Amino acid sequence: MVAEQLRVEQADFVAAVAGKLTDFLTTRQSIMMAISPDIDPIMGSISNLVTGGKRLRALMCYWGWRGAGGPASAKDIVTAGAALELFQAAALIHDDIIDRSDTRRGGPSVHRRFSQLHESQGWALDSERFGHAAAILAGDLCLSFSEEAFTDIGETAASGSRARLIFNLMRSEVMAGQYLDILEEVAGPVRDRAGAVSRAQSIIRFKSAKYSTEHPLALGGALGGASDELLRGYSAFALPLGEAFQLRDDVLGVFGDPVTTGKPAGDDLREGKRTVLVAFALDLATPEESAFIDSKLGSPDLGEEDVAEIRRIIADCGALQATEVLIEEFGAAAYAALEVLPLEDLPKTALRRLAEATVSRAA
Amino acid sequence: MVAEQLRVEQADFVAAVAGKLTDFLTTRQSIMMAISPDIDPIMGSISNLVTGGKRLRALMCYWGWRGAGGPASAKDIVTAGAALELFQAAALIHDDIIDRSDTRRGGPSVHRRFSQLHESQGWALDSERFGHAAAILAGDLCLSFSEEAFTDIGETAASGSRARLIFNLMRSEVMAGQYLDILEEVAGPVRDRAGAVSRAQSIIRFKSAKYSTEHPLALGGALGGASDELLRGYSAFALPLGEAFQLRDDVLGVFGDPVTTGKPAGDDLREGKRTVLVAFALDLATPEESAFIDSKLGSPDLGEEDVAEIRRIIADCGALQATEVLIEEFGAAAYAALEVLPLEDLPKTALRRLAEATVSRAA
Repeated sequence: MVAEQLRVEQADFVAAVAGKLTDFLTTRQSIMMAISPDIDPIMGSISNLVTGGKRLRALMCYWGWRGAGGPASAKDIVTAGAALELFQAAALIHDDIIDRSDTRRGGPSVHRRFSQLHESQGWALDSERFGHAAAILAGDLCLSFSEEAFTDIGETAASGSRARLIFNLMRSEVMAGQYLDILEEVAGPVRDRAGAVSRAQSIIRFKSAKYSTEHPLALGGALGGASDELLRGYSAFALPLGEAFQLRDDVLGVFGDPVTTGKPAGDDLREGKRTVLVAFALDLATPEESAFIDSKLGSPDLGEEDVAEIRRIIADCGALQATEVLIEEFGAAAYAALEVLPLEDLPKTALRRLAEATVSRAA
Repeated sequence: MVAEQLRVEQADFVAAVAGKLTDFLTTRQSIMMAISPDIDPIMGSISNLVTGGKRLRALMCYWGWRGAGGPASAKDIVTAGAALELFQAAALIHDDIIDRSDTRRGGPSVHRRFSQLHESQGWALDSERFGHAAAILAGDLCLSFSEEAFTDIGETAASGSRARLIFNLMRSEVMAGQYLDILEEVAGPVRDRAGAVSRAQSIIRFKSAKYSTEHPLALGGALGGASDELLRGYSAFALPLGEAFQLRDDVLGVFGDPVTTGKPAGDDLREGKRTVLVAFALDLATPEESAFIDSKLGSPDLGEEDVAEIRRIIADCGALQATEVLIEEFGAAAYAALEVLPLEDLPKTALRRLAEATVSRAA
């Protein structure tokens, strides 16, 4: 009974967010075409990116709203979901430039789309440079769009509102967390190794956990009129859930199946990501093995053999196991916090499902 | 009398915007330090950038407000000025990555600051790549800040307000205009030469004229309660003024004194900018000279001698003269539109001064 209602309601919401995104981008498309039809590939890259995805953030936001007593299929929460999806698209566009990821969801990333466009048209100068420049601008435009959509919510998201404060904090924290992430890539090797795991955990918290689960849930709650106490309860659930989510992501980034993840195997290693998984390995492996990993992290041309050897070290030294234990602990903390949340059956079941999908996913 | 009042009032406003920016960034600094002191260089790069500059956009906004009857030294217009300055800083950070400009106002640009930090700290991997990544994130954060400041204005800038619509359109148009700019750099050489001047003029309009003068003036007007008719009059003045402004910028980008502009001579040519000045030259010079310019545009290692030769061609073929004529025509159109604006003495004089400074500047 609850299961069926949940399925229908969630499908309705996801469809409504998709519809809102289409409407929103259609109005922007007319503005852009009035400037020049040449802008079309920029708009296309944004549309393409908001069409796919797991909609995790929008769904967290929705169930945060419903848990706080917000009505099903209300306009404001659909707009908030669309704003979160646009923000996520903007973050992905710039993230892929920063991480030099050439693929996203099995297709070319935005900067690759533009360098391919350059090549196919036989344009002058450097195609890679053009790709990066175009993707910086596409991400900026998409970031502005997310803000425009968020403002469209109106009074409950106006200046000084709780929802606005959460949205602002979310943006700042994820950008700060991403900076800490790239900083650790370059500074990690010369910083004290003892602090590496805790630095990696702090990066996870800001660049991912707060952004992917805690803030979207709180945002929905705030829009739905949640009490401060309910918002605290939301955090106690969503923060460890988000940490488990990112740790799972890190495991998939090294051990995941490219067919399921849509990204080449070992991409995280090529990008030089110093994740909790890697920090554990550097700590637990033999000095020779650690030195091997250190020398390979961040090599863009890391081959299959090296990836396989790093995987072997991570598994054998116990780093994979230690990370799985952490995922389990964070997951358990999230579930425990969820059970004491004063929610009705439907939102509680929905959040439990989301949590399960998040922690045990394969992609 | 008017001159003295103008001087005092404008100085008061500029000081108030600087104070607002300091206050704003101080509160954001505390949020960032709670995440990690490692974020400090990001915040420092933003502070540094909003400290300098001509404040052209904030001043346009202010006199648009005053012309519409807004009171001197009011909180809202100071906040709007700060939001525009933050937006300009964000645009400059990303612009300098896109254009590979290593200097900004005589110092290193933000991506260079971060690659220098990388080098001075002896960090691992590639310093240039780190610099670009950090600057992408610094620009994103600054773009978010500009939005936060703008929303702080409150009701007159709320969802659906005229001011919000102008702010949104400004952002979209400048990003679209920048894309057209980089597109012309690569696609220009293979597109029809006959359309080059008109494409360059369209780029100027969107990436610069609307953004630097038309929209800021209209924004101030809308916040101050201007009639639609007054806003139309503002556009008739500010759009040609902005076009003259950018044409002057293009001339300075090739012929300007590095000591005054704070940028190396010929940087625009190294970046491959296909400005109106360059488009005229390609059209008016001999086929051999045009081919020479075409072959040199966008070479990062363009030497002093080549720059000097391109300058000679641009001057001798009449392209410089043709651009100066355009600047004069746009300037004259702006002045004519200004004279018929139904404004009091003080704002009208202020706008005339701003126009003079804009069209005849040397930096």
